[in-house]
Amino acid sequence: MTLNALTDLEAATRPVLTDQLRAGLHELYKHLHAHPELSMQEHNTAELIEEHLTGLGIENFRCGGTGVVGVLRNGEGPVVGFRADTDALPILEDTGLEYASTDTGILPDGTEVPVMHGCGHDTHTSVLLTVARMFVENPGAWAGTLVLIFQPGEETGAGAAAMVADGLWDRAPKPEIVYGQHVMPGLAGTASLSVGTAMAMADSLKVTVHGRQSHGSQPQDAIDPLVLGAHMVVRLQTIVSRELDPRQAAVVTVGTFHGGLKENIIPASAEFTLNIRTFDDDVRARVLAAVRRIIAAEAAASGAPDPEIEELYTFPACYNEPAEAEAVAEVLRAALGEEAVSVVPPVMGSEDFGHLAAAIGVPAVYWCFGGHSAEVLDGEGPVPVNHSPFFAPVMEPTLTTGVNAAVAALMARLGR
Amino acid sequence: MTLNALTDLEAATRPVLTDQLRAGLHELYKHLHAHPELSMQEHNTAELIEEHLTGLGIENFRCGGTGVVGVLRNGEGPVVGFRADTDALPILEDTGLEYASTDTGILPDGTEVPVMHGCGHDTHTSVLLTVARMFVENPGAWAGTLVLIFQPGEETGAGAAAMVADGLWDRAPKPEIVYGQHVMPGLAGTASLSVGTAMAMADSLKVTVHGRQSHGSQPQDAIDPLVLGAHMVVRLQTIVSRELDPRQAAVVTVGTFHGGLKENIIPASAEFTLNIRTFDDDVRARVLAAVRRIIAAEAAASGAPDPEIEELYTFPACYNEPAEAEAVAEVLRAALGEEAVSVVPPVMGSEDFGHLAAAIGVPAVYWCFGGHSAEVLDGEGPVPVNHSPFFAPVMEPTLTTGVNAAVAALMARLGR
Amino acid sequence: MTLNALTDLEAATRPVLTDQLRAGLHELYKHLHAHPELSMQEHNTAELIEEHLTGLGIENFRCGGTGVVGVLRNGEGPVVGFRADTDALPILEDTGLEYASTDTGILPDGTEVPVMHGCGHDTHTSVLLTVARMFVENPGAWAGTLVLIFQPGEETGAGAAAMVADGLWDRAPKPEIVYGQHVMPGLAGTASLSVGTAMAMADSLKVTVHGRQSHGSQPQDAIDPLVLGAHMVVRLQTIVSRELDPRQAAVVTVGTFHGGLKENIIPASAEFTLNIRTFDDDVRARVLAAVRRIIAAEAAASGAPDPEIEELYTFPACYNEPAEAEAVAEVLRAALGEEAVSVVPPVMGSEDFGHLAAAIGVPAVYWCFGGHSAEVLDGEGPVPVNHSPFFAPVMEPTLTTGVNAAVAALMARLGR
Amino acid sequence: MTLNALTDLEAATRPVLTDQLRAGLHELYKHLHAHPELSMQEHNTAELIEEHLTGLGIENFRCGGTGVVGVLRNGEGPVVGFRADTDALPILEDTGLEYASTDTGILPDGTEVPVMHGCGHDTHTSVLLTVARMFVENPGAWAGTLVLIFQPGEETGAGAAAMVADGLWDRAPKPEIVYGQHVMPGLAGTASLSVGTAMAMADSLKVTVHGRQSHGSQPQDAIDPLVLGAHMVVRLQTIVSRELDPRQAAVVTVGTFHGGLKENIIPASAEFTLNIRTFDDDVRARVLAAVRRIIAAEAAASGAPDPEIEELYTFPACYNEPAEAEAVAEVLRAALGEEAVSVVPPVMGSEDFGHLAAAIGVPAVYWCFGGHSAEVLDGEGPVPVNHSPFFAPVMEPTLTTGVNAAVAALMARLGR
Repeated sequence: MTLNALTDLEAATRPVLTDQLRAGLHELYKHLHAHPELSMQEHNTAELIEEHLTGLGIENFRCGGTGVVGVLRNGEGPVVGFRADTDALPILEDTGLEYASTDTGILPDGTEVPVMHGCGHDTHTSVLLTVARMFVENPGAWAGTLVLIFQPGEETGAGAAAMVADGLWDRAPKPEIVYGQHVMPGLAGTASLSVGTAMAMADSLKVTVHGRQSHGSQPQDAIDPLVLGAHMVVRLQTIVSRELDPRQAAVVTVGTFHGGLKENIIPASAEFTLNIRTFDDDVRARVLAAVRRIIAAEAAASGAPDPEIEELYTFPACYNEPAEAEAVAEVLRAALGEEAVSVVPPVMGSEDFGHLAAAIGVPAVYWCFGGHSAEVLDGEGPVPVNHSPFFAPVMEPTLTTGVNAAVAALMARLGR
Repeated sequence: MTLNALTDLEAATRPVLTDQLRAGLHELYKHLHAHPELSMQEHNTAELIEEHLTGLGIENFRCGGTGVVGVLRNGEGPVVGFRADTDALPILEDTGLEYASTDTGILPDGTEVPVMHGCGHDTHTSVLLTVARMFVENPGAWAGTLVLIFQPGEETGAGAAAMVADGLWDRAPKPEIVYGQHVMPGLAGTASLSVGTAMAMADSLKVTVHGRQSHGSQPQDAIDPLVLGAHMVVRLQTIVSRELDPRQAAVVTVGTFHGGLKENIIPASAEFTLNIRTFDDDVRARVLAAVRRIIAAEAAASGAPDPEIEELYTFPACYNEPAEAEAVAEVLRAALGEEAVSVVPPVMGSEDFGHLAAAIGVPAVYWCFGGHSAEVLDGEGPVPVNHSPFFAPVMEPTLTTGVNAAVAALMARLGR
Repeated sequence: MTLNALTDLEAATRPVLTDQLRAGLHELYKHLHAHPELSMQEHNTAELIEEHLTGLGIENFRCGGTGVVGVLRNGEGPVVGFRADTDALPILEDTGLEYASTDTGILPDGTEVPVMHGCGHDTHTSVLLTVARMFVENPGAWAGTLVLIFQPGEETGAGAAAMVADGLWDRAPKPEIVYGQHVMPGLAGTASLSVGTAMAMADSLKVTVHGRQSHGSQPQDAIDPLVLGAHMVVRLQTIVSRELDPRQAAVVTVGTFHGGLKENIIPASAEFTLNIRTFDDDVRARVLAAVRRIIAAEAAASGAPDPEIEELYTFPACYNEPAEAEAVAEVLRAALGEEAVSVVPPVMGSEDFGHLAAAIGVPAVYWCFGGHSAEVLDGEGPVPVNHSPFFAPVMEPTLTTGVNAAVAALMARLGR
Repeated sequence: MTLNALTDLEAATRPVLTDQLRAGLHELYKHLHAHPELSMQEHNTAELIEEHLTGLGIENFRCGGTGVVGVLRNGEGPVVGFRADTDALPILEDTGLEYASTDTGILPDGTEVPVMHGCGHDTHTSVLLTVARMFVENPGAWAGTLVLIFQPGEETGAGAAAMVADGLWDRAPKPEIVYGQHVMPGLAGTASLSVGTAMAMADSLKVTVHGRQSHGSQPQDAIDPLVLGAHMVVRLQTIVSRELDPRQAAVVTVGTFHGGLKENIIPASAEFTLNIRTFDDDVRARVLAAVRRIIAAEAAASGAPDPEIEELYTFPACYNEPAEAEAVAEVLRAALGEEAVSVVPPVMGSEDFGHLAAAIGVPAVYWCFGGHSAEVLDGEGPVPVNHSPFFAPVMEPTLTTGVNAAVAALMARLGR
């Protein structure tokens, strides 16, 4: 792989984020932030993206339900993919922002819930739409094809697979590499990436615990699924604390637990969901086996029927091809400043990003850009992380950094 | 207290459940069973009761929202109260009955839930309306005033208090005693009652566990309210197992536990509800103190903020004035057969029934009548108890027994 | 059964506890208290009893290892048995008494432990030896045969069975009834007994938990038997809290837990012992099954081998034949005062006393006498119970009451 | 730092492990293995070491109780320290070796326990004595001073501190570096070491849980310290599973738990010990704070008095000065073969080795050598690790490798 040196890019023709573009970016971001949509239900978001792409004259098509793909062709040259994810989360926003979300959505089980862009995908989408505009408006600066992938359903692991299954790579030109980026709690203006494994594998399970319903005053006639479920949650802690090499990173999170409708009824069942993070195939196998072993055994301890364990989704590890990742690191240092870019160990976060490139056997590189001010990072109290109701990236220099990083990485391949 | 001997009642004039009346009772019961309503939302049920009472020419008034009181006056004589409760429960009926409920209701938190007459209040209401008809149609058999109390919201402990607060005893004649009855998993055709304490005290609490929300892959930034709540549920078991005299009956049931919206988010909070049953004031105080102590300490163990503990309701013990209870036992034996009536120790169930009489300082007697066939009781598998999705009293001789027991007790006081 | 009325006893000839006898009783009691011996190792105690009996001219024989039986014949008349138990407990005495024990003993596993008469068997033995003297010294007051049973090993459930197996009833005359008594935390001067079931059944189990040993820093190579055992102890709490009718008394106590020799080694195994109390055969069966189910399932949850469960001993329920118990109650009221005697529900304590009479199919009656002063009972702080390191009966009127109760019961049968 | 290249060493004069020396080494090893002694009680081992040193004409002195220091002077040149630890563990050996230990020892609390060289210190001691002989016998090969440190009490963290406190560095020449090595479960013939942090910090705590003693049948009068302690053990698991960054290694092991003497007594107290491993000061502080927080809160949940927490010992991190560590790696590769030496991440094990050099501010390097055959490593079943009752290094090539590694490292500094 060779990269065009950044110094080859003429400032005159290179895409630059003007104040006017930045103002549009801010408007777009605030609109998306105020109107988040749950995974695979990003209907309004998809329409908004389509309108933008069409307005820019970029050919586009729906893919994977609420996914949108734009294909911007500019003569001979490499084909490069760039992915932004579009979905939001069932979180009650507590940021106090003027443009905070008050929208709600409907979970698959029919529950109405508040929705928030608590993972920052609104930055990804607004940045990529702005980058698209910059490439449209500066055709002399580059050559080749840019495949813009607006992916739904990252949070449920459904989106990348849905796009691939819906013929993404039959309908769009095949890229030589796919890029992606994510906003993180680091300092706004900085970026970071890993060489090799970048993010953890994730496995999500749903467990339905069966007991026997009875009047709350007659435990002797019940098999109490809440006491049983509580013991399962407690016992699952021993996987990380006792069954793994302490130097192997792993997370077993119970993210939801629901059972019972009335305090004086011991319910018939309860259900909870698990999210498991690992980096190593052996560790993953060991954790998954231990989860199943513990859940089955605890049910037996209660004399309860076997619980049902449903696999919700699996994220593969997110892998940055090393040579490409080092090249991107160099490009980002040139664009953002030497000090602003760090190479970091893998994080416990997970992504289905890698699935897009893996489906056609091309490399991928994924990096992070910071979203917090120094005041937030150095202040008292915990720093709000992704998925927190308080997660509120400062608009600047966060969004500008996202744009500059994307432009730099793309221009390094596509720039004349 | 003196009771008119049952042998004094002339069969000719005594109210008797004819086949025609029984057919109407069955229709009424099936209708109520098929259309259950949640506590304090018994709007249709209240209207149906009003229509029946008005149709019978019985003066009636709304009381306590969805409560209905009928006053049937028949010359000089004692005033006697009889109460039937009218509400149903958030249970998904699984009886397979032809007239099973498929209705839903809305919980106070806005959740739509299935509703079922899983505690058998439909038997109480249909029986009392039938008894009212029998007293209307046999005026020569009795003298005095019968106060028919159709009480809402027994399951939430709100109903009796709401009726008293709404002026029940200012608007209806004050009775010298209040009777009530409940269907139970015993053999249909039989009845049972306790002398003295009849049912347990019940206290219901709602606990809100506060943690700190974070991404599911970053437990180090969270205080996990699900793991904390699970430890609370587990630790609460030690109250009954280790802190009480084993000969003192007590129940600490966690009936609901809810937290989290997504498997890859550690949520900010969780909540669960508790239902506590005791017979003894000291035991009750000890249990309530231990619940608060454990919940506070477990939160401290997690470094979490103090949980909120809200008192949902308290049921007093249900007390059968001993002389009156023994008199009722005698009357029931005469009506149902010597073998069919048993005097039993108190049960763990609770009732706000006692509140109605206690509010004016008169005695009360409460008995149970069986609802299961011998096949169900002697069959394999657990016998469905109240609040089970399988609780399905056989219509006969259950309903006839309920009518006969009520008539016998009332006639013992009001019969000429 | 007929009892001689107490008023028939001539004060002149009736055995009376003189000041001199009482002084001897106190000396004997203090000596026994200061020199307690563990179950089935009561060698010095047995020799002391033999010396006393022989000194009184009472024929006697060893039975069941460290048991001693005295047979006092006084002409024609009924044969009556009276049992005192002789063993002490592995407790570090903390009573501050002048005659507190500083002795130690050796447990079956070889551990040297402090020993204390923490259950008050020293009162039983010193009282029965004194009663024996009184019957020897007042031969004109009674007729018949008194079988004095000094039983070892009550605390381990081994003693009564050992005496029966060693031919107790082949070697001693068969009594028409067996009496026994026990000091309790009630008011000194009072007595209490139950009619029918008097004490709970007790089952003791020893559980050996197998894991896999490893370095403390390498949990991934271990199966941690301490974490596993802790989960078993926690999970066992749910038997009493969730699996039984709350009105059914039951206790599941883990009395010992031992595992590990060094903080930086995860040991290969751990062991704990259980003591289970129930009154009802069905409840007992349910609890024992649940214990085994939970222990097996928790081991499975850890991926550990099946634990071993050894049955240490079983105490039958202690049953007071109702007519005989009511007769004893009457006799004790006459002897101690009407107010001083109460008929009480069964207690959770257990005894192998019942085995002695059951072995030959004769009735038995067992009562309790109080050992605490009003100051202790009404003071601040918890009242020391049997098996507490602070359990210290006041010598008087405790011992006199024990003597008077025993003499009254025996004279009611044997008195002329 | 410069190291004399190994190729400079003339084979003729360089110390070589002859067959005769190896035979002596084996005898010595088997003797030490068969006669292990507990920490700070290595009396016979110390005498054996003294005899050997004196027999070799090496001046020596006792230091830190059962520690022995030999000083071998050979003209001008560097001073280098080499440490071997001498103590064994309370483990019941289950290796089946012909020379397996059947010896016992007495723990500080008076308990007699089996003792085993389950950590392999017998290899360290026998190897260093053999190396000493080789240096004595080859005086022409080297120049300088070799300080041979036979340290007691490594397993309890008491030994290095005791030697320093007893004037080690006032009495022996101060070295420019201290070396040490440890046998591990790797392949015999290989060695490994870390550059920088080599081993974890270790903190050991002893927790005394106070409850209130009662009869096993009367939990209502007790505060059960076994149920409380079990909840502590369970709750402590959440520190590693929920409170730490999953990428930060930490271990919280409960290595012992002891409470109760009899199954039918709820004891007054229980005690357990903790061993904590961390690499990072912040993580260590967070874990220690969490341990104290959880223990205090769980006691509060039981209404128990504050537990006592005693700090048993703290091991500092074991740090290999990077330049020196890389130099040693090179030397070992030359001595053992390129493939036989690996640079590895830090291990969770701990050592007080670092204390010896840190006390005088000189660098230290610590490496490991493998002790298992390929059959053991590749066989079915878990590989026995240090502190396992099955830990049995194969004598060869384990011991030869230990000798060769030590000689190589020392000769690289001291060789002419």
